[in-house]
Amino acid sequence: MRRSSVYIALLHYPMYNKNMDIVTTSVTNLDIHDIARAARTYDVDGFYIVHPSASQQRLIRDILAYWQEGYGGVYNSDRQEAFRLLRLAEDFPAVLEDIRKETGREAITIATDARQYPNTITYRGLRRDIAETDQVYLLLFGTGWGISQESMDRCERILEPISGASVYNHLSVRSAVAIIMDRLLGASWYN
Amino acid sequence: MRRSSVYIALLHYPMYNKNMDIVTTSVTNLDIHDIARAARTYDVDGFYIVHPSASQQRLIRDILAYWQEGYGGVYNSDRQEAFRLLRLAEDFPAVLEDIRKETGREAITIATDARQYPNTITYRGLRRDIAETDQVYLLLFGTGWGISQESMDRCERILEPISGASVYNHLSVRSAVAIIMDRLLGASWYN
Repeated sequence: MRRSSVYIALLHYPMYNKNMDIVTTSVTNLDIHDIARAARTYDVDGFYIVHPSASQQRLIRDILAYWQEGYGGVYNSDRQEAFRLLRLAEDFPAVLEDIRKETGREAITIATDARQYPNTITYRGLRRDIAETDQVYLLLFGTGWGISQESMDRCERILEPISGASVYNHLSVRSAVAIIMDRLLGASWYN
Repeated sequence: MRRSSVYIALLHYPMYNKNMDIVTTSVTNLDIHDIARAARTYDVDGFYIVHPSASQQRLIRDILAYWQEGYGGVYNSDRQEAFRLLRLAEDFPAVLEDIRKETGREAITIATDARQYPNTITYRGLRRDIAETDQVYLLLFGTGWGISQESMDRCERILEPISGASVYNHLSVRSAVAIIMDRLLGASWYN
């Protein structure tokens, strides 16, 4: 039984595009479904979708209502259960404020990225801290071509890149979230 | 450096639907993308999409051509690289035959499922076998509500279910493939 609380957030702004311009990305329906299901499977405390646009927030609210209160929840109650973890926020500070309200504490912010940084933390180290110390963690995941430098700089630590079995590392954010949840929060299968 | 060859296959028939009827599922574009990217990241030898319908096979061929030869490959060469692993087959025996032609050997077939079976193999055991013995493995993944009993019975072993951190286990096949590749083929992060 882990001692820490763990929240995750999927950012849509400020992101890089292919040319390293700062852009706002669109919400992808399957990101919401896949990440909510993984979050529920790994017993995450909350999953924030972070988007600054009112119209995209309305779209997400419609999807949520279908699964939380509408026919979706009747048809597939497992999906309804996963969607209970979902929250909307307009930016990164709003997520921190919401967690502060819920827990009365400051979240330790951990960015994820496919590149290595000086303040990188290992999976083994973070898994141990989550299990054994009583903290509140917020893990940030990016869309598009990755989280902007400005947002990375605001995070206390950066999780080491996922090493597959080759130098190629171009996983979808859906796959990356699943693998990272498994490494940090999964029942250990390797002992 | 692992000693075995590893192939994966995504089945669309014969699958269960919600009511445990045998059905053919549709191809999902994002399954192809996410699983191809994960397969490339974890250095899988080939990724088979198994579908009996000629029209769905044509659809997959169109997607493939776009990324392998068309504008997609120019726009995103990483995606082109992932799509090189992709192959089409009309059924499970055709996959085995194709692997036999390529390797001159019979693949050891491993099904994946969210339930526990008598002939279950552990992640730790299969990871060790893949790394240390010189075999050919084929891992089968299902769509819809899971692989039919008939297909499960044809497999030599069944991989143990993914344990998250709760009794809830309703991951998408995209997430399940990513996690299973990481457990079986990823650089070990836990030592």
